[in-house]
Amino acid sequence: MKFFKVKTVSESLSIIADQFRPLRPPVQLPIADACGMVLAEDIVSGEQVPHFSRSTVDGFAVRARDTYGASDSLPGFLDITGRIEMGKAPEQLLKEGQAQAIPTGGMLPEGADSVVMIEHVEEIDDLLNVYRQVAPGENVIRAGDDVQQGELVMTAGHRLRPQDLGVLSAIGRTEVRVFPRPIVGILSTGDEVVPTDKKQLAPGEVRDINSVTVGATAQQYGAKVIQGGIVRDDYETFAARARQLFEEVDFLILSGGSSVGTRDFTVQVMQALGEPGVLIHGVATKPGKPTILAKANGKPVMGLPGHPVSALIMFRLFALPLLDKLQGLRPCETDTRLSAKISRNVPSAVGRTDYIRVKLEERADGLWAVPVFGKSGLISTLVESEGIVEIGQNKEGIIEGEAVKVYMLS
Amino acid sequence: MKFFKVKTVSESLSIIADQFRPLRPPVQLPIADACGMVLAEDIVSGEQVPHFSRSTVDGFAVRARDTYGASDSLPGFLDITGRIEMGKAPEQLLKEGQAQAIPTGGMLPEGADSVVMIEHVEEIDDLLNVYRQVAPGENVIRAGDDVQQGELVMTAGHRLRPQDLGVLSAIGRTEVRVFPRPIVGILSTGDEVVPTDKKQLAPGEVRDINSVTVGATAQQYGAKVIQGGIVRDDYETFAARARQLFEEVDFLILSGGSSVGTRDFTVQVMQALGEPGVLIHGVATKPGKPTILAKANGKPVMGLPGHPVSALIMFRLFALPLLDKLQGLRPCETDTRLSAKISRNVPSAVGRTDYIRVKLEERADGLWAVPVFGKSGLISTLVESEGIVEIGQNKEGIIEGEAVKVYMLS
Repeated sequence: MKFFKVKTVSESLSIIADQFRPLRPPVQLPIADACGMVLAEDIVSGEQVPHFSRSTVDGFAVRARDTYGASDSLPGFLDITGRIEMGKAPEQLLKEGQAQAIPTGGMLPEGADSVVMIEHVEEIDDLLNVYRQVAPGENVIRAGDDVQQGELVMTAGHRLRPQDLGVLSAIGRTEVRVFPRPIVGILSTGDEVVPTDKKQLAPGEVRDINSVTVGATAQQYGAKVIQGGIVRDDYETFAARARQLFEEVDFLILSGGSSVGTRDFTVQVMQALGEPGVLIHGVATKPGKPTILAKANGKPVMGLPGHPVSALIMFRLFALPLLDKLQGLRPCETDTRLSAKISRNVPSAVGRTDYIRVKLEERADGLWAVPVFGKSGLISTLVESEGIVEIGQNKEGIIEGEAVKVYMLS
Repeated sequence: MKFFKVKTVSESLSIIADQFRPLRPPVQLPIADACGMVLAEDIVSGEQVPHFSRSTVDGFAVRARDTYGASDSLPGFLDITGRIEMGKAPEQLLKEGQAQAIPTGGMLPEGADSVVMIEHVEEIDDLLNVYRQVAPGENVIRAGDDVQQGELVMTAGHRLRPQDLGVLSAIGRTEVRVFPRPIVGILSTGDEVVPTDKKQLAPGEVRDINSVTVGATAQQYGAKVIQGGIVRDDYETFAARARQLFEEVDFLILSGGSSVGTRDFTVQVMQALGEPGVLIHGVATKPGKPTILAKANGKPVMGLPGHPVSALIMFRLFALPLLDKLQGLRPCETDTRLSAKISRNVPSAVGRTDYIRVKLEERADGLWAVPVFGKSGLISTLVESEGIVEIGQNKEGIIEGEAVKVYMLS
């Protein structure tokens, strides 16, 4: 058995950031299908928004200078020459001394530059008493105020949220170029592992939990998942199945059996898939130390520990950033983890990054993270856990009341 | 036009919490299809996990008392009588003075109560030198340590996350009863509103942004969406289309045209759909004041403002909790918004809850929320915005450097 030097978490994340990029060409999709996907093009607006100058209130379109000096005691008087209908162009120009009724969102007539609110006028037949002066542009959004024609609206590498689709619609885009959803393949190994639908376990057997948790997390994160099933601890069979699945996917996950033999096989199989081979063999974390990452012909291959808790934490820690890279996502520079205080002392070892499961409690003085303990094999602790707290590698632990950041397991 | 008293945000949220519940019976789904859905049953384990006592290390299964007193200077000696294979039941009992080789995850033989790690023994043919004593249960997860048969594992009202599916798999559940995904119908109104795929806008026309942003947010949140299209400002047409869509959905959204006429129609249409009718007519917020909520035969009907920014904020503020209620989700008691400091003074008015869009900046002293300003009709500000900060109704504003909570617009 060869020994590699274990990598720190930050070394491992740097390798992921440097080594991986989108492998498949962008696709053109209707915007309704593109939510959650990453833009592969810069978006330049082909039109102006709004398309025309609009009133932001119900009132009367006027020329501002015709209202100057108007007040409750000394109203201005204007001739009402029309009523603008929603969704239609005004039928006539607005000339000096005139006003046209306009609804919120209505199009400003040519000649008008502002709108007096309905609350500040009085209509007497065709005469409008104006009790408040307005400035040019008041109560109006001018054509192009929101988006100019030719304006850069979004850039490649941005993940599309519902509001971004709204902006794309506003500028008349119905399709958009995005990076395709990565295809993740999961292959479980181990002579003890049986399919999750096996009803009666024989002594010594365990169900294939990792394919379920890793598969659902990958899907939740926008990936497509191919379940490769379970393969026995036999090098030839394992290597053949891994090779076959590798060809079909963008990212291969090998969920390791926990025996020594399987661990060795996993590395050999990963090395054999292509160049440059294994990049990370072991990370300085608890849990999750036996995590392995390889690169073969540009594609990532990750070997996860067999323990369901370790596998899930390592998948979230390393595979989710990897999925981001495969989708061309621009790196995020803000730390969006929750702030909380830890409810008790938790010891750790210097030189190792620890991940502890926590539940959250809202107390009078704010949010507290309460560690959920249990042997690392215990998956029932995951039901209670709402998040993960990291104890950095230079720390000997965290002290009750210390501020921590919580990565939500949602 | 009737005037209702506007409700505060907390009054409105209380009404939502009290008035709505799941309308459709639970469905039975394979667990792989149930991620993100809400449990409609308590889950009691039908089996124990693990199914058998397992070793947590590579080593030798022993009787702890046979190792008592063993040390580097005074090793104990045991007879190696077997090698346990992964996934199989041990072939023989372990008797006094014996040891059996066992891999991590292997099944403990009857008679053994603990495992000595491989690092603490030396094998000499069939003789095992033991250099460290172990306690009963050491390096072993006993049958049922993780989950006992008959144990309550999860309760109804819990939203299933990937890790919960893992626990369900571990206890042999392949299907689960969950509340069905709510069906949301969206009907847009307004003579100025045209479909988003209309290429050349005529003067006065705007595209139907809200159906895109609200539809995508509802889908992202697990709802199914029926797009009802656009209806003109005509009471009979509007009422007929709303009634038809209402019958097909669990939750009807009316995205309001902004003209006075449409606003009146919306309330009338909502009242006519069923008892008890309008519950909330206007909320003390900025933006979003003209938001309306009705209940008709148990179903929610929401009237959203026409402005895309207002509509999206109001949908997130009120419709997402409503979707939770329709799915039977247990209320969450923790505040999971991000903590940040506001980068500048923002004035507000007492008696009104303000929602301001912010982007996030990671600075040396932590996370800052930087307000993104713009007239409320400007949807391009939504691209830049990463979250929403609430300014409570009893506040006159927030001061630069003040701690705020950020609701992420992700």
